[in-house]
Amino acid sequence: MSYLRNCWYVACMSSELADGPLARTILDEKLVLFRGENGEAAILQDRCPHRFVRLSSGKVAGDAIECPYHGLRFDGAGKCVHQPFEEGEPAPHNRVRSWPVVEKGGLVWLWAGEAESADPALIPASFDLLDDPELKTVHGYLRIAGNYQLINDNLLDLSHVDFIHPAARLPEGYETYRNKVEQRGDQVIHWLWKPGSTPNFIQAALRDSTSVKADVFSHLEWNAPALMMLRTGLQDPGEPEGSDLNLPSAQILTPETETSTHYFWTVSRERKKDDTSIDELYVKALTHIFSTQDGPMVEQAQEAMGEEIDLFAHHPVILSSDAAAVRARRILQKLIREEQGHSSPAPGKIAAA
Amino acid sequence: MSYLRNCWYVACMSSELADGPLARTILDEKLVLFRGENGEAAILQDRCPHRFVRLSSGKVAGDAIECPYHGLRFDGAGKCVHQPFEEGEPAPHNRVRSWPVVEKGGLVWLWAGEAESADPALIPASFDLLDDPELKTVHGYLRIAGNYQLINDNLLDLSHVDFIHPAARLPEGYETYRNKVEQRGDQVIHWLWKPGSTPNFIQAALRDSTSVKADVFSHLEWNAPALMMLRTGLQDPGEPEGSDLNLPSAQILTPETETSTHYFWTVSRERKKDDTSIDELYVKALTHIFSTQDGPMVEQAQEAMGEEIDLFAHHPVILSSDAAAVRARRILQKLIREEQGHSSPAPGKIAAA
Amino acid sequence: MSYLRNCWYVACMSSELADGPLARTILDEKLVLFRGENGEAAILQDRCPHRFVRLSSGKVAGDAIECPYHGLRFDGAGKCVHQPFEEGEPAPHNRVRSWPVVEKGGLVWLWAGEAESADPALIPASFDLLDDPELKTVHGYLRIAGNYQLINDNLLDLSHVDFIHPAARLPEGYETYRNKVEQRGDQVIHWLWKPGSTPNFIQAALRDSTSVKADVFSHLEWNAPALMMLRTGLQDPGEPEGSDLNLPSAQILTPETETSTHYFWTVSRERKKDDTSIDELYVKALTHIFSTQDGPMVEQAQEAMGEEIDLFAHHPVILSSDAAAVRARRILQKLIREEQGHSSPAPGKIAAA
Repeated sequence: MSYLRNCWYVACMSSELADGPLARTILDEKLVLFRGENGEAAILQDRCPHRFVRLSSGKVAGDAIECPYHGLRFDGAGKCVHQPFEEGEPAPHNRVRSWPVVEKGGLVWLWAGEAESADPALIPASFDLLDDPELKTVHGYLRIAGNYQLINDNLLDLSHVDFIHPAARLPEGYETYRNKVEQRGDQVIHWLWKPGSTPNFIQAALRDSTSVKADVFSHLEWNAPALMMLRTGLQDPGEPEGSDLNLPSAQILTPETETSTHYFWTVSRERKKDDTSIDELYVKALTHIFSTQDGPMVEQAQEAMGEEIDLFAHHPVILSSDAAAVRARRILQKLIREEQGHSSPAPGKIAAA
Repeated sequence: MSYLRNCWYVACMSSELADGPLARTILDEKLVLFRGENGEAAILQDRCPHRFVRLSSGKVAGDAIECPYHGLRFDGAGKCVHQPFEEGEPAPHNRVRSWPVVEKGGLVWLWAGEAESADPALIPASFDLLDDPELKTVHGYLRIAGNYQLINDNLLDLSHVDFIHPAARLPEGYETYRNKVEQRGDQVIHWLWKPGSTPNFIQAALRDSTSVKADVFSHLEWNAPALMMLRTGLQDPGEPEGSDLNLPSAQILTPETETSTHYFWTVSRERKKDDTSIDELYVKALTHIFSTQDGPMVEQAQEAMGEEIDLFAHHPVILSSDAAAVRARRILQKLIREEQGHSSPAPGKIAAA
Repeated sequence: MSYLRNCWYVACMSSELADGPLARTILDEKLVLFRGENGEAAILQDRCPHRFVRLSSGKVAGDAIECPYHGLRFDGAGKCVHQPFEEGEPAPHNRVRSWPVVEKGGLVWLWAGEAESADPALIPASFDLLDDPELKTVHGYLRIAGNYQLINDNLLDLSHVDFIHPAARLPEGYETYRNKVEQRGDQVIHWLWKPGSTPNFIQAALRDSTSVKADVFSHLEWNAPALMMLRTGLQDPGEPEGSDLNLPSAQILTPETETSTHYFWTVSRERKKDDTSIDELYVKALTHIFSTQDGPMVEQAQEAMGEEIDLFAHHPVILSSDAAAVRARRILQKLIREEQGHSSPAPGKIAAA
């Protein structure tokens, strides 16, 4: 296995660049992420080409990043623009690798493939809502020591909720829900819904209606390699989906290495937007849940799998609740094979599907 | 080298299963040990076959163990007996490996070979005393980061006592003792004795006689791979061995990996059985001695040997005090070779010798 | 790459042997260093040949070191001179490897090559001043997790001072200094000087003259593999070099492994020799600077280079300020090649150059 290359990965939250350069490993590459005085985010190889010090341990100087050891500076394209004690221009090879970057939805995205194919329109359209000024969006981040596809599996099979998230359990339990998995091109859609259910405590706090019961739903759209938009909400019986509460949540996974993952999430709401205690509740609750409940499951699975990160190579028992996850794994496997074999359609295929 | 397979290894103390499942690696296998509501101890591979989570991070449910991630349950034979959201019976391969188990002497024993050969009578008869109701037996456990045979060496050569256990030094020192090594079939017996010696402080506290002097002895029986019964004690001159004090002590080593060991010990006494301060003294003193005095010696030896765990491959200097240890190593080497070559007698040979 | 063998390496400061044996890895060998009651320093392989325990965890007994496990003793030549419970003489192979040792300048030196070539005169003559009774010499030691040549690079290119040592910055900055690199045989000499400069705070505190300005200089002599004598100081304009202040400082690197280094330093002075607060200032300041400013740069470089410790194999950008460092690397590379090819002059060549 290896990574899908011609696609966008989230590298960091925009807010993470406020206080100077950030070191982050993505797809096995040690990178420095920084925002120049011109306001533009840049991503470079985190290694000065002179004596190999991490540029991320230096500082932003103008629109460039300055190596802390001998003061060489590199601009957002990776070119050396200042060498303090040298006469003449920097040598042509005095540069570091750079990656295409776009900012969208409060996130800094990195293009992992050929630079000429880096089209921001290839970010799935469902993520546009992160820039919707009518919504209040909260962002969060954590690192999990497991392959990103194990977290894909987790999000695409909510039957685990009854066991590892007893407090967030769906009302009346997973087995009382109706369930549908659909494939649309290279997307996987997973629905769960239940008419006449009981909202949980956070749904009850945010909805308008005062009915005791509601029709509740969970709708997850997966895009390769691991860009998910999860919509949960509820409505009074017979009303349009989400008409009483609509809580879209991006779930975005970026491989740090084959055995560890950067997990970015957002939750957006259209109610009580000025209540910052709700923001804090989301950050605290989701960080707690992902890091102490889902995270350990993924990390135990990773530890058992070792370096062979292809789930199927371990001959797992497959349950019917794995249907969406297995489809996503098969699609991703196909896309990576196509990309490596050059027999595939244009790189845009992934998100355009 | 590898492990002797057709023999019993101690997996845990019975008391360790009182509070739910226990994770323990034995012979390089990650295992879960648990006691069902039926009271029976069971040992399974510690990996759910669905998404590879450690069953030991779950809980006991009836006579089964429940995976914490999606709630699958496995009985003591390793068979899936409950899959919460599936229709129909679990698939035939929805199971985990199990190991034959027997409880004896307050210990849970695992059979590492072919299940059909797992005969409890193959536990050496000298361990029967652990179930003797006339004796008060204290159990202890610690982990040492070294190959089990290095601890065998330690126990079979007590010349180290003068140097690393100055407080437990034999009266008048090791060199004043008489010493004999004998091989009986595949057992090694090591005697040390001295007529007219001075009991040490713990012997003096437990014996009946008020003589200043006594004939003291130490008698160790080694059985492959590392099941030892050590009897120490004393008697008035000319009286039968142990007639004034008899302190049998099991010394049991179970490989965690080739380079680390589970060390179980017991001490039994027939005097002052209700004095729990003696129990506490044994646990405290032996844990201190093994972990801070013997343990570091074994761990330094292991560190020096690295992955080559055959002592002889390192061309060590052999001293006369190594006589018992070298015999034990040669017997174990022979038994492992016979087992692997299938040219050996029936598996029962080991303990029946 | 590998190490230069026929040369002296500093193993420890003499003062480090005051409190019993010292364990230290040098050139990948685990060694025990100790001083017998006869006052002589000795260096042996840190592994008892009986059961492989570290001799450094034992104690000095007379002129020998005693293994803590079974009491075997080895003299400074590595010969077993006592085996407590054995009859007869130790076997001929009951010994450990020893290394030639000389003490000079408050340092214990180890010869890494053939014993018959171990001539103390091969220590560079510039280190004689460490034994000069007219000077007060302070010694220091720290460990850095990087290849020793990266620290050579650091010391041979002071352009880094402006960036990582802002407090110790040369007056008016590196670029205002005159600069010369010279090769003399297999030595590299690097001068920096500036007429009419401003002494820094420590120079000002130690000099005699009350002029505001002075001619300042820095003169570094490098000898393979990493024995450097750095002289810094100043004089009134037109006076002989160092006539107003002369601060010779040894900078000595001994490979622990290919990726870690023992860094020994000294600073000698002829003024205020009884002021121990200056001794303390040097130890505190240099330890702080080397461990928190230079050390991290070297360690980041090492991390980036991984196991390939040849800088040139990584195709670095070379700057003009690398001139001295690159010469030293090329000389060392040549000397190692000559030594391995046996086409080189006598071992003495290194230091006699």
